[in-house]
Amino acid sequence: MERFVGELLARAGELARSQGLPCQVVLGGSAARGTWLAGDHDIDIFLCVPEHRELEEAMAIGRQLVLEHEERYAEHPYVHASLGGFDLDIVPCFSISDPSHLRSAVDRTPFHTRYVAGRIRGLEDQVLLLKAFMKGIGVYGSELRTGGFSGYLTELLVLKYGSFAAVLEASASWRPGLVIDLENHGSAIHTQPLVVVDPVDPRRNVAAALTLDRFAQFIGAARQFMVAPHERFFFPAPAEPLKDGELVRALQARKTMIIVVEFRPPDLVEDIIYPQLQKAQASIRSLLDREGFSVLRSGGNVSGQWGWLLFELLVWELPGVKKHPGPPVWEGQHLDSFLQEDRLILSGPYIEEGRAVVEVLRKYRRPDDLLRDRLGSLSLGHHLSPSIRSSFVLYQGWEILSIQSQDFRLFLSRYLSLRAWPAAQD
Amino acid sequence: MERFVGELLARAGELARSQGLPCQVVLGGSAARGTWLAGDHDIDIFLCVPEHRELEEAMAIGRQLVLEHEERYAEHPYVHASLGGFDLDIVPCFSISDPSHLRSAVDRTPFHTRYVAGRIRGLEDQVLLLKAFMKGIGVYGSELRTGGFSGYLTELLVLKYGSFAAVLEASASWRPGLVIDLENHGSAIHTQPLVVVDPVDPRRNVAAALTLDRFAQFIGAARQFMVAPHERFFFPAPAEPLKDGELVRALQARKTMIIVVEFRPPDLVEDIIYPQLQKAQASIRSLLDREGFSVLRSGGNVSGQWGWLLFELLVWELPGVKKHPGPPVWEGQHLDSFLQEDRLILSGPYIEEGRAVVEVLRKYRRPDDLLRDRLGSLSLGHHLSPSIRSSFVLYQGWEILSIQSQDFRLFLSRYLSLRAWPAAQD
Repeated sequence: MERFVGELLARAGELARSQGLPCQVVLGGSAARGTWLAGDHDIDIFLCVPEHRELEEAMAIGRQLVLEHEERYAEHPYVHASLGGFDLDIVPCFSISDPSHLRSAVDRTPFHTRYVAGRIRGLEDQVLLLKAFMKGIGVYGSELRTGGFSGYLTELLVLKYGSFAAVLEASASWRPGLVIDLENHGSAIHTQPLVVVDPVDPRRNVAAALTLDRFAQFIGAARQFMVAPHERFFFPAPAEPLKDGELVRALQARKTMIIVVEFRPPDLVEDIIYPQLQKAQASIRSLLDREGFSVLRSGGNVSGQWGWLLFELLVWELPGVKKHPGPPVWEGQHLDSFLQEDRLILSGPYIEEGRAVVEVLRKYRRPDDLLRDRLGSLSLGHHLSPSIRSSFVLYQGWEILSIQSQDFRLFLSRYLSLRAWPAAQD
Repeated sequence: MERFVGELLARAGELARSQGLPCQVVLGGSAARGTWLAGDHDIDIFLCVPEHRELEEAMAIGRQLVLEHEERYAEHPYVHASLGGFDLDIVPCFSISDPSHLRSAVDRTPFHTRYVAGRIRGLEDQVLLLKAFMKGIGVYGSELRTGGFSGYLTELLVLKYGSFAAVLEASASWRPGLVIDLENHGSAIHTQPLVVVDPVDPRRNVAAALTLDRFAQFIGAARQFMVAPHERFFFPAPAEPLKDGELVRALQARKTMIIVVEFRPPDLVEDIIYPQLQKAQASIRSLLDREGFSVLRSGGNVSGQWGWLLFELLVWELPGVKKHPGPPVWEGQHLDSFLQEDRLILSGPYIEEGRAVVEVLRKYRRPDDLLRDRLGSLSLGHHLSPSIRSSFVLYQGWEILSIQSQDFRLFLSRYLSLRAWPAAQD
């Protein structure tokens, strides 16, 4: 790997010189710091140009460096390629002197590399252990889907505490609201569960993407590991698509009603689609709960051509009658409107806590009727709403056996065997 | 009636004189004030003795006044008799000069009689209308079961506003927290929905027994009556015991699950047993709701030898799985105990809002299993607990058709047709 990367860096330097572009070529990320996790396949090369030049000049070099590539776009365009089994990103950025005056987020990365590379010497293995542990329990990665620990955050934790074991031990006293400030900048005000002040940019929280639940999951898993360390924390059994028989047994044990909304998702990157999957789940859960269908848990997945939203219900058939609370009786105008609504009243109006209440015929006694009628008017996320509305198919109970997609069966397997850390040994 | 009462009063006076007891004989309640509602059958005669004498001397006169009687006990003993179709209470009390220094609650009554009798002249019919309206909609009576308006309170409302219609009109602007203070005592601090400062005893709230819901019911019914006055507000159709066919039709429309706990109640006066019926209902509702069986409404009734608690359920069968939330993950000791509990885990532990959560096999999938197992350990009221525990029988769904008691069928009829005011006319 090293030789391969070395050649790339050298060639990029030559290209820049030959075109008269003063350009620093910097290897970024874990590859540059010796904290590269086996199984990672990302090589990031930064082409840093002076602020008075154009990023487009660096893009031109990137295009020539690897002829077979595609252009992608985050804050700026960059060049992406698959080369020799690796995912290679060639990222133009500005060479700035003070990271608090950066022009885009990628301009900060060379500073991170410089900060960590100069201090991590001798601790690389500790970083690798911590990353592998976090990856094994599923909290490694700062993309929105995971909401976990970034590589840089992992490195800073090892710098702070000194070793893998020391980080795990320290986590026993972590609470939401913890602030870690290696350079004593003392300047950051954030409300996230964990605040790690960026040594090279004090306004920034390195742990901004970490969710409360991934933070808690790490604390809990660290505790379990210290009680009974085992390699499964690093190398969990890979999830397998659920076979028909396993699915039947799970449904028979749980005796819940699983409803799946299947749809054709738009082709968008995960960090855009994932928050919308979450929003869609929350909207539908709230509708189901409001109407009396009690949701135990839900899940969402997009994989290639298909997307699925899954709701597991404790209650999926309701009686004919429904309680409909009205206004406090002393709000006369509201009371009049409430009493004049056209409906079949089974009991009432009677009084409960000062309010008029009627018991009326329930419109939706089953969740599929409710969803078929109301899914179209829910807010399901900007990009997902049209996709879901135009094409959704409902499956419920045993019907989900008919979804043969292995991606779906893998999603189901992960949903049903959800664990924050590996099971205790027998 | 008047002649009959007059004779009683005269004879009581003679008996006192002949025994050398200086005793004021006072006719109390509505009979004395000309605000006696047809259908009322209560005559209250107060025998007021000076404070240095004994109540027992007045009791002796009561016993001689009506030979066929029983002795009852509230704060003090008194004589009760059924005479000529009337319920007669002969109540000894102290003749005190200042009602703020009374020795027992009954000592206050002669002051009320004097206050109202001197002012109500010409307004008796208005009081009668208001009482009849309140009785018709079910908010008349200050006993705990009703939690409504007492006769004295009704009289004070007419004195305050001037007429039946004026009270109804005024109620349109009533809100919980209203204070009515006829004599401008300005001294009472109470937190009840309605505070009516007692003109003869400023520390006392005449409306202390009025519940928020009966207060609201009056306001709502007054509004409906003013929009469309009708005699049914005064003379509602009497409730009839529900016949089998009617009960079947109601159950078919509602499609809920009705559970009845039948028991043998102890022989106690309503004001003691009623709050315990409420408490027992609340305990059982809360247990059912906690375990996931959603209660739409409940009711309770004691009538002679039998008592019933009724729960109408929206949900009465639950899946095999149950979500069991544990402590926040960073509470290490609590987490350890939670994880060490012995149980069959179907999913988890996983993290939700920082807490460890497991999904386990549910113990009670049906409400009857739950109640049979746990009713005995619930707090159902001091007097009711032993009765219910020792003898309860559960009926659910169609089984309640087998309860043939007409008292039960009347209770059911009232439960199902519960209304705060009469239905609008067709």
